[in-house]
Amino acid sequence: METLLTDPQKTRYQEFKEFVATNVQPFVEQWDRDQRHPASIIEQLGQSGYLSSTISPEYGGKGWDFVTYGLLNEAFGRASSALTDLLTVQTMVAMTLLKWGTDKQRGQWLTPLARGEVIAAFALTEPGAGSAIESLKTEFRHTNNGDTLILNGQKKWISYGQVAGLFLVFGKLKERPVACLLERGIAGLEIEPIQEMLGFKSAGLAKINFHDVEVPSSSIVGKPGFALSHLAPVALQYGRLSTACSAVGLLRACFEESVLYAATRQIGERTVGKIDMIRTFIAKMGADLGAAQLLCYAACRAEDEHLPEAFTKILVAKYYTSRAAVRAASDAVQIHGASGCQESSPVARYYRDAKLMEILEGTTQIHEQLLSSLFVDQAAQLKG
Amino acid sequence: METLLTDPQKTRYQEFKEFVATNVQPFVEQWDRDQRHPASIIEQLGQSGYLSSTISPEYGGKGWDFVTYGLLNEAFGRASSALTDLLTVQTMVAMTLLKWGTDKQRGQWLTPLARGEVIAAFALTEPGAGSAIESLKTEFRHTNNGDTLILNGQKKWISYGQVAGLFLVFGKLKERPVACLLERGIAGLEIEPIQEMLGFKSAGLAKINFHDVEVPSSSIVGKPGFALSHLAPVALQYGRLSTACSAVGLLRACFEESVLYAATRQIGERTVGKIDMIRTFIAKMGADLGAAQLLCYAACRAEDEHLPEAFTKILVAKYYTSRAAVRAASDAVQIHGASGCQESSPVARYYRDAKLMEILEGTTQIHEQLLSSLFVDQAAQLKG
Amino acid sequence: METLLTDPQKTRYQEFKEFVATNVQPFVEQWDRDQRHPASIIEQLGQSGYLSSTISPEYGGKGWDFVTYGLLNEAFGRASSALTDLLTVQTMVAMTLLKWGTDKQRGQWLTPLARGEVIAAFALTEPGAGSAIESLKTEFRHTNNGDTLILNGQKKWISYGQVAGLFLVFGKLKERPVACLLERGIAGLEIEPIQEMLGFKSAGLAKINFHDVEVPSSSIVGKPGFALSHLAPVALQYGRLSTACSAVGLLRACFEESVLYAATRQIGERTVGKIDMIRTFIAKMGADLGAAQLLCYAACRAEDEHLPEAFTKILVAKYYTSRAAVRAASDAVQIHGASGCQESSPVARYYRDAKLMEILEGTTQIHEQLLSSLFVDQAAQLKG
Amino acid sequence: METLLTDPQKTRYQEFKEFVATNVQPFVEQWDRDQRHPASIIEQLGQSGYLSSTISPEYGGKGWDFVTYGLLNEAFGRASSALTDLLTVQTMVAMTLLKWGTDKQRGQWLTPLARGEVIAAFALTEPGAGSAIESLKTEFRHTNNGDTLILNGQKKWISYGQVAGLFLVFGKLKERPVACLLERGIAGLEIEPIQEMLGFKSAGLAKINFHDVEVPSSSIVGKPGFALSHLAPVALQYGRLSTACSAVGLLRACFEESVLYAATRQIGERTVGKIDMIRTFIAKMGADLGAAQLLCYAACRAEDEHLPEAFTKILVAKYYTSRAAVRAASDAVQIHGASGCQESSPVARYYRDAKLMEILEGTTQIHEQLLSSLFVDQAAQLKG
Repeated sequence: METLLTDPQKTRYQEFKEFVATNVQPFVEQWDRDQRHPASIIEQLGQSGYLSSTISPEYGGKGWDFVTYGLLNEAFGRASSALTDLLTVQTMVAMTLLKWGTDKQRGQWLTPLARGEVIAAFALTEPGAGSAIESLKTEFRHTNNGDTLILNGQKKWISYGQVAGLFLVFGKLKERPVACLLERGIAGLEIEPIQEMLGFKSAGLAKINFHDVEVPSSSIVGKPGFALSHLAPVALQYGRLSTACSAVGLLRACFEESVLYAATRQIGERTVGKIDMIRTFIAKMGADLGAAQLLCYAACRAEDEHLPEAFTKILVAKYYTSRAAVRAASDAVQIHGASGCQESSPVARYYRDAKLMEILEGTTQIHEQLLSSLFVDQAAQLKG
Repeated sequence: METLLTDPQKTRYQEFKEFVATNVQPFVEQWDRDQRHPASIIEQLGQSGYLSSTISPEYGGKGWDFVTYGLLNEAFGRASSALTDLLTVQTMVAMTLLKWGTDKQRGQWLTPLARGEVIAAFALTEPGAGSAIESLKTEFRHTNNGDTLILNGQKKWISYGQVAGLFLVFGKLKERPVACLLERGIAGLEIEPIQEMLGFKSAGLAKINFHDVEVPSSSIVGKPGFALSHLAPVALQYGRLSTACSAVGLLRACFEESVLYAATRQIGERTVGKIDMIRTFIAKMGADLGAAQLLCYAACRAEDEHLPEAFTKILVAKYYTSRAAVRAASDAVQIHGASGCQESSPVARYYRDAKLMEILEGTTQIHEQLLSSLFVDQAAQLKG
Repeated sequence: METLLTDPQKTRYQEFKEFVATNVQPFVEQWDRDQRHPASIIEQLGQSGYLSSTISPEYGGKGWDFVTYGLLNEAFGRASSALTDLLTVQTMVAMTLLKWGTDKQRGQWLTPLARGEVIAAFALTEPGAGSAIESLKTEFRHTNNGDTLILNGQKKWISYGQVAGLFLVFGKLKERPVACLLERGIAGLEIEPIQEMLGFKSAGLAKINFHDVEVPSSSIVGKPGFALSHLAPVALQYGRLSTACSAVGLLRACFEESVLYAATRQIGERTVGKIDMIRTFIAKMGADLGAAQLLCYAACRAEDEHLPEAFTKILVAKYYTSRAAVRAASDAVQIHGASGCQESSPVARYYRDAKLMEILEGTTQIHEQLLSSLFVDQAAQLKG
Repeated sequence: METLLTDPQKTRYQEFKEFVATNVQPFVEQWDRDQRHPASIIEQLGQSGYLSSTISPEYGGKGWDFVTYGLLNEAFGRASSALTDLLTVQTMVAMTLLKWGTDKQRGQWLTPLARGEVIAAFALTEPGAGSAIESLKTEFRHTNNGDTLILNGQKKWISYGQVAGLFLVFGKLKERPVACLLERGIAGLEIEPIQEMLGFKSAGLAKINFHDVEVPSSSIVGKPGFALSHLAPVALQYGRLSTACSAVGLLRACFEESVLYAATRQIGERTVGKIDMIRTFIAKMGADLGAAQLLCYAACRAEDEHLPEAFTKILVAKYYTSRAAVRAASDAVQIHGASGCQESSPVARYYRDAKLMEILEGTTQIHEQLLSSLFVDQAAQLKG
């Protein structure tokens, strides 16, 4: 894939990898055991500008293109799916504000978000809904004077909900979908950490309960009624792309660990890499990695060029890479044998983390429904 | 499968399931978190006779047939792969002693093993060998007078090594493979617990180091030179069968949890079970479960009938069921969505445990080599 | 599987295999090229009683149990999926008549069917319906006096429609599903051979058109309204079981050809069977074959014992074996390399025939819908 | 993929597709049945310059880049794998001559090859060797005076061997691998057509026997000893790339036929595309198509840029696309149901043709060996 990159993209990718090698890789297993990140790494991310990669420079952001954003996620995904998930959600909220927020909302929030002084959470998913976003039960209602809204409901599986300072909450106001900003510490906002996840252990997932939370009407982002049709899609576009590239990072991790193990680990007289069945795994993993990288690159570039097919390409990228990551992680454990079944080997973590990628930001099954509809409708139109 | 069972087999299977429902299922998640079993459950197993199922009554065992042994492992595997692994190793050592031990060895050990007063560990695998058992590095050598042996070497991934009172250790004595009994507490025997496994967390895995351990020559089991050709195969036969049936239990667990979830869990307007992609998963899982049960039954029965094809059938059973368990666990998590990615749902544990079944008691790849050789050699003979 | 058979079942299975080796295997490639069977083999089948295997002795049939019927189909499926399909459809029609026909219908047709003097076709599928049998468009209507019915409509993919003397035709009479017997040669009955099938080339598939065909009301089989709910299920039960066992035969053919090739074919210095990737194929194929045989055996036996779970078990058997046959045929071609891509090697034919097994007698997708509904409904009932 | 193309590449791709739509698509089923191509289409190919796409203009060729060559193969592969195979072999021989031929050889042959006046065959594979090219048995020996060589041996599975006017034959001369040009009609050259292939039916495969064929020493191409290390790799590079792109064409054909069918075909009340299981197939096929196109594009471009990784990328492209084509063809048949099992539907042909792509120009297994060695050796070097 690298041959398709511009020189600045290559340079930044190199920087990303170095940052990760120094500041992430050595600590990631400890963070996984702790089920949290220390404040210091989040500060470092803020200072490096990596939390502001797509925020425009007027708000102190880097304003990088999508390809660069993809490379950032890939480089971080190589070491830690959970930490990359912070890039995912921070960007999802920031980009929604950048595109749909009022001047005041942007002025207030984008710079602290860009600097990592505030962590954002994207509060869409509800306990009873899974990926079926249209059936929101969280409810906003007007108080008598209309300047204030009362919020009740529940959100679940909210990444970085445990530490977020700002929540973008989706709900319904008189049956119209709305999204609204909420600050941590507001009365009636209750945050329950979700512990003991299979993967993404340090991503600070939380369940969030709203008990008659009062918010000023000015906290609404975008026009009431447009939250699911216009706001969420912007956020999800970034979310899927980030997850897709993070999955490529994990796939590369599996591949690199596996070929290294195969090249050096002796079983009896021969190295593991001489066992043909292992070779089949490695060939498949390498081919999948190549395909996954190119699909992500093509998706990012389509988004950079504002092509209408960007939406489909991002779905394809998330769909393909998350499944390939699951296969690769399972095969990487198999290649490592018993050593791969101990958490001191990173492949055990990849095996746990990869599975969540088939579920986060839209399950594989949701992607199959969306993609097949897009493909079939297109054919129907051509025919019709 | 149940229609193929005899009445006593059915009755016992029912008893096993009741024991598990009462004494195992409610506690298994705690044990997994603790990475150990309490002494009480091991005592209960001893008292119930479940650790003596294949030991002959003359030593206080149940002397059950292989089909019943298989059902026992399936019933326990439904709840806990890690605890079932205790049935596996206890039986592996006991049956090796029963068949190849001296009268004195049998008299001394089989009754305490049957009662669970002593836990046994099967110490074959070495750090540098994986499934390649022929390349043992653990070494026995005679002292000058010949009555005593000095043992040096290392073993790894030894299930229940943390708590075992008796070790059956394989090594080489003047290039001839030997197996030898060792008691816990003997000088020079060092046991390092292996923590943080991906799965089988409470199975007490250990690394074992031998530093000039002195054992009397009378501790050798079987004839020197025959340890790998005659002793290990007996043990592995039981080990594979136990693992195969345990995998069927896990597969049934995935299936039962998944259909229950599909039947009851509402996503928006419909239950999960109405989503066709989920239906594909469920149909595959149900068919795999049916096939896995029958392969195990046929393997057990072939062993009961002393058929020459029992060896192949047990390999097929282990090979098929462990892979099917991995598929089923991955699909069960997918069916459960985000809920399946939290350890409060059992399917997250199944996902972690299942993967080890493709590695323990011979990896999938070793099984492919053994099976294809058997099949091809047979064809070559018919032709030749 | 053979160890589970009774002695008479074993003996007959041996006879079936000998008949096939002598009378089918040597000619099957020629029949495939000709896209038809010679009359002589159908006569032989009639004389041997193999077309009457499940017909009761009172009509000159063998009255064998289901396990024996399964073995018959397996033995024929080893050589020719297309010829086995004759056993399938002859039995489907005969058994429907035996169970639901009037005395007169049974008296008239069962003996000639048992003897192979008349070939029967099961005319259910329509051009626009695929496996969705509830949406029949073929229409019966009464003439004025009511003694005669007028039939209009179309059927497609009717096995042995080219040569059948008797058709069991499904349609609607005043919106009620009915089934009716039709003899070849009747006015208005038009038979169009379907040539150039991908597989099952000699199974004589036909499209059948009915243009104002007049039939006496006494030709209706069973009670009007019950054709889809009571008659078709009886036939399909036999049809699926026959196809499942035929698929096991094909799977065994792939396995036997592959291990023989692997054992004997030299590539450079070593036999194909020494290539590990080929070994993976062979191990999988052997395990699948074992599983497929047992699932068919269990399904047949459940039917023999009139167990309520027979319906599910037969669905599982057809679902599993047809997919396993497709995998095995693809791997068998791969093992044979270029030689397997030429029709002079039987594996090329298996590759073509196997794919139809995923479509005939209910597609894989229909099976997934039926099975998951059965599994999930069961769980819902237990819970509810 | 198209967004990555230059304008001239896009224009040519459009022309290729139009040529195929007019001159190939309408006739391809007839050619398949006939097991041959009419002379007219080969003439047309010659006139259009499509047989000379990579030959330099000095010999009357187009001298197109690799990306354009890939697009040409993709466009033809959409309609006919067998005809695309002519582009494959003609290019393989022409490019070998262009790079390694003497001035005289190039002067004599390249222009007629470019014009399609002579069809070339690449005669490497032998009956007993499969993809193991190092074990050639075809033998050249010098006559007494040394100006003439005597050739004996056999070649098999030689595409377009039935009609070729020029053969590039590989063999051994005093244990050194050599390649040599041979004209049709020379004494002792015997050509046996291979009929009844599973797929690629019109690609004119032949077995070729050499009985004391006399050739002048000047017919040797390249330096003796270098035929396998230098000549064959050049040819195989083009052959694999052509096959990879042809497989993408077949994959696109499966996808386009399937979405069209899903969009328009009614089963009962709904279109096939509304069935979720079909949607899973379509989503997978679409994602695979996207990945396959990008892998081929990246491989072509790496070759155009003379990157060292081009070799690996081309292997990955062939490995990935041929397997994806097999999956897609099987799913396309399944989507089409019984209609897809009749040769009047193109998907039946795709199912037959696709399988050969996993075998031609190096089997999937050979690719796994090559790729894993490349990957593992690289890791070993980085480590070492």
